[in-house]
Amino acid sequence: MAKQVFIAVIGLGGVGKAFLSQLEFVRQRLATQNPPIDLRLILARRSTKQLFSQDFAHLNTQTVASDLDSKGTPPPPFNETFGQLARAPGKVVLVDNTSDVGLASLYPMVLQRGISIVTPNKKAFSDKYELWESIFKSAANGTGSPSNGYVFHESTVGAGLPVLSSLKELVDTGDEVTKIEGVFSGTMSFLFNSFQPLGGGGGKFAAEVKKAKELGYTEPDPRDDLNGLDVARKLTILARIAGLPVESPTSFPVQSLIPKELESASSGDEFLQRLPEFDAQMDQLKEEATKEGKVIRFVGSIDVPSKQVKVGLEKFDASHPIAALKGSDNIINFYTKRYGSNPLIIQGAGAGGDVTAMGVTGDLLKVIRSLQ
Amino acid sequence: MAKQVFIAVIGLGGVGKAFLSQLEFVRQRLATQNPPIDLRLILARRSTKQLFSQDFAHLNTQTVASDLDSKGTPPPPFNETFGQLARAPGKVVLVDNTSDVGLASLYPMVLQRGISIVTPNKKAFSDKYELWESIFKSAANGTGSPSNGYVFHESTVGAGLPVLSSLKELVDTGDEVTKIEGVFSGTMSFLFNSFQPLGGGGGKFAAEVKKAKELGYTEPDPRDDLNGLDVARKLTILARIAGLPVESPTSFPVQSLIPKELESASSGDEFLQRLPEFDAQMDQLKEEATKEGKVIRFVGSIDVPSKQVKVGLEKFDASHPIAALKGSDNIINFYTKRYGSNPLIIQGAGAGGDVTAMGVTGDLLKVIRSLQ
Repeated sequence: MAKQVFIAVIGLGGVGKAFLSQLEFVRQRLATQNPPIDLRLILARRSTKQLFSQDFAHLNTQTVASDLDSKGTPPPPFNETFGQLARAPGKVVLVDNTSDVGLASLYPMVLQRGISIVTPNKKAFSDKYELWESIFKSAANGTGSPSNGYVFHESTVGAGLPVLSSLKELVDTGDEVTKIEGVFSGTMSFLFNSFQPLGGGGGKFAAEVKKAKELGYTEPDPRDDLNGLDVARKLTILARIAGLPVESPTSFPVQSLIPKELESASSGDEFLQRLPEFDAQMDQLKEEATKEGKVIRFVGSIDVPSKQVKVGLEKFDASHPIAALKGSDNIINFYTKRYGSNPLIIQGAGAGGDVTAMGVTGDLLKVIRSLQ
Repeated sequence: MAKQVFIAVIGLGGVGKAFLSQLEFVRQRLATQNPPIDLRLILARRSTKQLFSQDFAHLNTQTVASDLDSKGTPPPPFNETFGQLARAPGKVVLVDNTSDVGLASLYPMVLQRGISIVTPNKKAFSDKYELWESIFKSAANGTGSPSNGYVFHESTVGAGLPVLSSLKELVDTGDEVTKIEGVFSGTMSFLFNSFQPLGGGGGKFAAEVKKAKELGYTEPDPRDDLNGLDVARKLTILARIAGLPVESPTSFPVQSLIPKELESASSGDEFLQRLPEFDAQMDQLKEEATKEGKVIRFVGSIDVPSKQVKVGLEKFDASHPIAALKGSDNIINFYTKRYGSNPLIIQGAGAGGDVTAMGVTGDLLKVIRSLQ
């Protein structure tokens, strides 16, 4: 009989749905490999409903989202759900496609119950350092017992781009990472590639923010992108993997692009309406950069030896790979002792349901390989 | 007692020595993890000598190269060496740091004996398709028995850059890879970045080849780089992972930069002496590209749907990431359905002892995780 691995999915938004489609692909492949593995989806849960396969039979990945709507029951407390999962007759992998910090705070307990976790949930790994420590003290691939669960979170930085796995390999093989620098937000990438494209031109900043929102590149309230916190969370994760015990995403300098006067605007719409008042400031920054033959980009950087982490606007020469970025791509530069003056660079889409789900599915395959 | 994993190293050139240093780093880390792993170097072998630890005690990684010279014995046939390894009281990993096709042809048998393999040896994976099939039919991470050895070869393309692992993840999670294109040779990268730098200038082609040789960027006979075969081997490996059963590195169009008239030159020195006779041809290519606002680069590309693989000179717009490459860096663009019009890009040093060894050491860590 094929070895069974049980999958529980929490969160069925864009990433969750893309994950289910990839899960089906992986499931069919693993069923025919040697030895075969029987991947079974046994739980789907969103904020208002839960569908649990009492007999641990496989739920249909293609219909589970609608089945959850029609047949789902009000979700019990998380602890009860984990109790249900722990009774499965084999290893369980929890796929957390939410950004729920409450769920994240339960990871250590989940791992201690032998349940593995794969997730794009940044909160879990960028909140207080205490939670980070607690997660990796509980994980089989941390310093936890080998019978505990594994945890992987590739998609928390750069979505499906191989950012965290590459950084881990540099660290695990003994390279010295000296600096990490890059554009870690698709929104910020799109905004500044439009505001000050290589070769000149570009619109007013407020108009570009409005355009980005209309194209779906920003959060419903663009201030949730412009405050820099999303980038700060990613930097927190990278810094911790690089060995710096960063306390939280607010424990280092983060430049917000929200003018002080607009922090208290009552809505995203009011914010957008008043943002043009500050275009002159942004134009001045653009002009200064242009005079130096440079462009402005919103970047995060980690200087490892001096333990300095920061997020904000920087100027880059036109010949710098960060200046040449296109569309809403992310770019990550790893400067290390082995790579010398030219960094190891990873670049591409760093947001979107399909590529984020890919990182999660890739992590699921890592767990399955570790469980063999 | 800590679980033991036994390491055998064949080939102690630049990569082999860098690997030994990284092995020591990894060994000390694994010894203190929970549960600890006791990595033991039990065999070192080069073309003329072998040192084998009869009692499977750990050989000193720092002195093994000189101990091999002073205490090594003439190496027995490979089969005998593998027999010695198979008697180790635990899992064995063979680290093949050679480019020996004879050794590569024995991989299937090695894997069937339960010995895992990690290697930067391109020959093993780019020779006849039959050998590729035979290797992966024998590997535990192919379609072989789970008790067979694992095989990983990240460093065969782009050295330590996460090229193969990224391509495998795209394929394994169900993305459709449509095109792979890049600069896969540090030598070719350096040559063309010097011959036609972005922004104009650059020397005569023959002079740039001479300079590259003097700086140690070419093989002793530069024709071994200019014939394109090294790049063709890498393309063969990538194409096979992408699902194309490419027969051999000579079964698709490969443009050689060696003028027909100089193929028979008796030595690399004679070749270099006569190469300036052909500078006019190369200058003409450069002028044509310049007129179109482009630069020439030596690239490999795989068009997956049409199954076309080719290696040779191509012209790129100044704004293309391939045009903007620096020094001797490699760049690999993966165009996929999920990534859309902007490819997933990986860039950085693709040659050199330390970064090549890093790919090998990273593969060793993958084997160890799989063996858990």
